[in-house]
Amino acid sequence: MGAWESNVRKVTPYVPGEQPWQSNVIKLNTNENPYPPSPAVEKALREMTTGTMRKYPAVDAQPLVNEIAAFYHLKPEQVFVGVGSDDVLAMCFLTFFNSDRPILFPDITYSFYDVWAELFRIPYERIPLDEAFQICPQDYFRENGGVIFPNPNAPTGELLTPEKAEEIISRNQDVIVIVDEAYIDFGGKSVLDLIGKYENLLVVQTFSKSRAMAGMRIGYAMGNEKLIAYLNDVKYSFNSYTMNEAALALGTAAIRDRTYFEEITARIVKTREEAKRRLADLGFLVGDSKANFLFVTHRTHPAKAIFEALKEAGIYVRYWDKPRISNHLRITVGTDEEMEQLYAFLEKYLRN
Amino acid sequence: MGAWESNVRKVTPYVPGEQPWQSNVIKLNTNENPYPPSPAVEKALREMTTGTMRKYPAVDAQPLVNEIAAFYHLKPEQVFVGVGSDDVLAMCFLTFFNSDRPILFPDITYSFYDVWAELFRIPYERIPLDEAFQICPQDYFRENGGVIFPNPNAPTGELLTPEKAEEIISRNQDVIVIVDEAYIDFGGKSVLDLIGKYENLLVVQTFSKSRAMAGMRIGYAMGNEKLIAYLNDVKYSFNSYTMNEAALALGTAAIRDRTYFEEITARIVKTREEAKRRLADLGFLVGDSKANFLFVTHRTHPAKAIFEALKEAGIYVRYWDKPRISNHLRITVGTDEEMEQLYAFLEKYLRN
Repeated sequence: MGAWESNVRKVTPYVPGEQPWQSNVIKLNTNENPYPPSPAVEKALREMTTGTMRKYPAVDAQPLVNEIAAFYHLKPEQVFVGVGSDDVLAMCFLTFFNSDRPILFPDITYSFYDVWAELFRIPYERIPLDEAFQICPQDYFRENGGVIFPNPNAPTGELLTPEKAEEIISRNQDVIVIVDEAYIDFGGKSVLDLIGKYENLLVVQTFSKSRAMAGMRIGYAMGNEKLIAYLNDVKYSFNSYTMNEAALALGTAAIRDRTYFEEITARIVKTREEAKRRLADLGFLVGDSKANFLFVTHRTHPAKAIFEALKEAGIYVRYWDKPRISNHLRITVGTDEEMEQLYAFLEKYLRN
Repeated sequence: MGAWESNVRKVTPYVPGEQPWQSNVIKLNTNENPYPPSPAVEKALREMTTGTMRKYPAVDAQPLVNEIAAFYHLKPEQVFVGVGSDDVLAMCFLTFFNSDRPILFPDITYSFYDVWAELFRIPYERIPLDEAFQICPQDYFRENGGVIFPNPNAPTGELLTPEKAEEIISRNQDVIVIVDEAYIDFGGKSVLDLIGKYENLLVVQTFSKSRAMAGMRIGYAMGNEKLIAYLNDVKYSFNSYTMNEAALALGTAAIRDRTYFEEITARIVKTREEAKRRLADLGFLVGDSKANFLFVTHRTHPAKAIFEALKEAGIYVRYWDKPRISNHLRITVGTDEEMEQLYAFLEKYLRN
């Protein structure tokens, strides 16, 4: 080992879901949208040219920031954008979680939170979900260095009502509370209308799920102007230009098309509700997910075996060999056709 | 002030050069390439479709990493890519500069280095360039937590010979030495062939200058496999997917077109050498820049006044009100036509 290695920041990275490149795979493992982006995105792509790419993109990420603000009836100064919500969240951790006290998040949650905390050496504490995998607001009424939770939670899909989320926010006004709403558009109610009431609230969303643009890496945070200014200061101390020309152009087109967005999210919700019934019929215990995935456990068959059998059959779902959830599967909601193939395989498999 | 504000990381961000949006401006202030990207990039853009954008992009940034590796006759495991070289450098600071000892860089250099050091709370020391604005290798022969310098240096454009750069690398084998070669393609000789010899050497380059793609945000680092693996661990602990589909597709097309790249860099070098003569004739002292910009000071007219007069006339160059360089201007090499307009204005202005 070279002496230089002693100064290396050694970390255990987040492991994303597999991206198999065979085309005949049914991919229900990374919560991608089964539908393509809006036709308006295709149109914007056709209108792009490379001539302007020699220049740096807009440092203030315009017109994307303006369009996101317009969509949510906010001021541009209340919106921050980044390279997917992971980039936004990483910037938030770096900007806001600088206390000696531990930040709090659920024990079963997005598994990137502890990775960021470790990366930036932020103390943290995992707060156990209750037996029904629910977040209990009162568990977050204690001294801490900040709070973050996804709503709906991942990988459970369970939604906290805005009233309960508000309890957590209002009881923690001395720290920043981040509500990670990556999956909010599939039937949940956002806490966005609380950002005027609570200076300490930051709401993070993404184009990767409900806007079917995971491949373009666009995420955003919304909060009061002071929070967004602090976040931008850190961002501008990290990388002046994070959003490339294509992300700006295509993201702007995507957010402008509200009709398509509402249509595909409604379609996914419908498929999800049908999936709850069908999987229950197959002997699964199915949580009441309000996301674009389901979190399930089977009454008799072990999750790991089902996971492996599905993979063998070219159907990818997500499995974690982790405490409390090692007998669960997370299944992304695909198209109706994909889901039918899933049910058909399971029906045969579970008969054995 | 809310109590939460005490935990905010407060920083003084890097200030990039202005991006005026008037179309009639001559923009010689941010070292952009005056030529468009390769026609191969336009072709790749025409071949892109949005259908696959619903999925996450390749987590390993393929095929871009492979193509960069092929261009430089390296293994893909020796190449790291990021959202512009700023993202790459930020990741390097976070990964490698974790000593209690100060990292070293020149006093006159890329003004993002101290911003990253402040952001990540890395101790640092600025090593003065000599009177001729040259880096003196022996100044870096001392205990430190890492070394970084641009070659050619910015904003001076002065090039360190590979022999002198090697002295700095070889005398600092207990720490990481980063050679920031953003401008190396305009006539400098890279230290890339030393990465096999020195485990502690990381070479950083970018598509923003010589490949005319600042708008697409693509930078890369090259080093031994162990360094790149450490860098990737930190990157994957920050954001799983940083390179969007468009950056991957267009970047791959750009690096494949060696002919166009060589043609436009040669053209810029030719314009730069002509500019040295023309500006000297106008009474400027002109450094021997090997970059796509010139660093100049006028014998009689103050730089700040020239800067403001140029701006007034719609010609943007870069000026810093900083110690040692407050009477200098950095002028990006534009097209021959743009440079003629610059000379014409200066000729008239300096006559007064």
